[in-house]
Amino acid sequence: MGKIDEFQRERERLNQLDLSKGNLEIKRFFSLDSQVYRQGAIPTKYKEILGLVASLVLRCDDCIMYHIIRCHEEGVSQEEFNEAMAIALVVGGSITIPHLRRAYDAWEELQRTSR
Amino acid sequence: MGKIDEFQRERERLNQLDLSKGNLEIKRFFSLDSQVYRQGAIPTKYKEILGLVASLVLRCDDCIMYHIIRCHEEGVSQEEFNEAMAIALVVGGSITIPHLRRAYDAWEELQRTSR
Amino acid sequence: MGKIDEFQRERERLNQLDLSKGNLEIKRFFSLDSQVYRQGAIPTKYKEILGLVASLVLRCDDCIMYHIIRCHEEGVSQEEFNEAMAIALVVGGSITIPHLRRAYDAWEELQRTSR
Amino acid sequence: MGKIDEFQRERERLNQLDLSKGNLEIKRFFSLDSQVYRQGAIPTKYKEILGLVASLVLRCDDCIMYHIIRCHEEGVSQEEFNEAMAIALVVGGSITIPHLRRAYDAWEELQRTSR
Amino acid sequence: MGKIDEFQRERERLNQLDLSKGNLEIKRFFSLDSQVYRQGAIPTKYKEILGLVASLVLRCDDCIMYHIIRCHEEGVSQEEFNEAMAIALVVGGSITIPHLRRAYDAWEELQRTSR
Amino acid sequence: MGKIDEFQRERERLNQLDLSKGNLEIKRFFSLDSQVYRQGAIPTKYKEILGLVASLVLRCDDCIMYHIIRCHEEGVSQEEFNEAMAIALVVGGSITIPHLRRAYDAWEELQRTSR
Repeated sequence: MGKIDEFQRERERLNQLDLSKGNLEIKRFFSLDSQVYRQGAIPTKYKEILGLVASLVLRCDDCIMYHIIRCHEEGVSQEEFNEAMAIALVVGGSITIPHLRRAYDAWEELQRTSR
Repeated sequence: MGKIDEFQRERERLNQLDLSKGNLEIKRFFSLDSQVYRQGAIPTKYKEILGLVASLVLRCDDCIMYHIIRCHEEGVSQEEFNEAMAIALVVGGSITIPHLRRAYDAWEELQRTSR
Repeated sequence: MGKIDEFQRERERLNQLDLSKGNLEIKRFFSLDSQVYRQGAIPTKYKEILGLVASLVLRCDDCIMYHIIRCHEEGVSQEEFNEAMAIALVVGGSITIPHLRRAYDAWEELQRTSR
Repeated sequence: MGKIDEFQRERERLNQLDLSKGNLEIKRFFSLDSQVYRQGAIPTKYKEILGLVASLVLRCDDCIMYHIIRCHEEGVSQEEFNEAMAIALVVGGSITIPHLRRAYDAWEELQRTSR
Repeated sequence: MGKIDEFQRERERLNQLDLSKGNLEIKRFFSLDSQVYRQGAIPTKYKEILGLVASLVLRCDDCIMYHIIRCHEEGVSQEEFNEAMAIALVVGGSITIPHLRRAYDAWEELQRTSR
Repeated sequence: MGKIDEFQRERERLNQLDLSKGNLEIKRFFSLDSQVYRQGAIPTKYKEILGLVASLVLRCDDCIMYHIIRCHEEGVSQEEFNEAMAIALVVGGSITIPHLRRAYDAWEELQRTSR
């Protein structure tokens, strides 16, 4: 699970750094950031799709990667993934295409390695 | 239904103008823009919430207004609305707050007038 | 020439304010901002279309309005306008549509009043 | 103090609405949003200038207005205001100019009414 | 033609993946994306310059690279390239400078290898 | 001083390229870009923090890296760095977190190598 594994290791290392060096407000933000994706009136699966589409239209590769991994864990299907990608592409325009390409690449890697 | 009604009338008027003056590519884009929100593997209700959150993080008041009206039509609850707003706020930051304020204002107007 | 005339008057009033109150760096930036649109290897007409498309994808109504007026002065045709709008729409996505609507509205006003 | 007074009244009304309707995460975000501007190693005055420049480059009129009022309360001088505006303009480019114009207009109103 | 060749190979590989896995809406978007740059009332050369400037102000390296290659194929001169870059830089501000640097680097590589 | 040293070398190489190939407007912009950070009514240290926060909310890694190096040279403390990061994070939202992570990584490298 090459690229994805490497991504997760680096992400973990830097999160530790931020939390050890950052101040109280930064820690509170990180905590809030995980609270909003918790199961609620909107099921977790759809919250992760929300995070994925928001990350796509804002064009942040690391955020896209993180939510793709979470979507995969929550059992998002190929059809659901395609429909979310299509909405993000239409909302955000062709400027999102390079991120969409990398998103499909990561999604494929996840499908392959979990078979 | 003051502000919302006015919004819809102006939106309709200008859409007519675009479609009468615009070229084939613009018409195709408008058509594609409605296709991606159609019922599919992801239910329409969640697609409209996706449109709402994407519009919030990209900070487009007219797009937010449109998807709030559609969310209301699709029966989105206050809890679901709050959770979608919270995700958008955390992803997009305090710079989205003025749009969030207007979103709550429009949502309130819709709740009031549909009781 | 209602909306457009009002836009130009307010723009002029505020530019005077900026130049009377702003510092040297702000004045230099304003000067540079007009230099880059001057006739050169790229004709002025295409430079104004460049300014228009950049303003559309960055979603700035005042900037769009300004470049629409300049495009009109430079003799941009309806077909050229449509093609520029289509590129901006595809690059920037549906989030640009509210600005595109207002752009067509202003363009129509300019066509009507100059006939 | 026309426009500024109206801005503050509407802002207050909508903040009340958000806090009465919003969920816990939204309330926590609003609280965090005021914590980060509190006096610390960076004096409040400079924190408000940071908020102003961030709002300018992200092109949010309401956020700009809010931080201009706060900068005025913290005794920011005309020279400091100009230097902050010049940094924002150079970082954010000519697309920020319409917001810069409105910023100077609001700043002028504050100077006039507080003399 | 090191970096550019590598870019094109990876782009091609991922486009194939998107088109084989993506749904109808994604395919339609990709098709629309090539339609808008076709020769029309605005000549192809200027459409590619439009794509380049839009990509610069939106700060997407892959999009910039693609349009630089296309501009080179369409015979854009050094003077035209400079004028387009200057407009993008002034509109988008110093935040675009890292992308501008990489744009000049790619442009140089194209000039060198095509002599 | 691995990553930072490499960053500075590449930045220098490309700046030379831009200035040798770019036109007068591009040179004027580069000159203006250094003028606005000069000591003035706002001390240089705070101007660099302004540049850092603006770069963070606009999510430009190279710009962040440059201003982190300058902040370090101007003697910004860990507490000041944390407070600036917290403002940027709250204004810009979780979409800035990957850039914040890399910012802390670079800041750590600077602290380590200058001890």
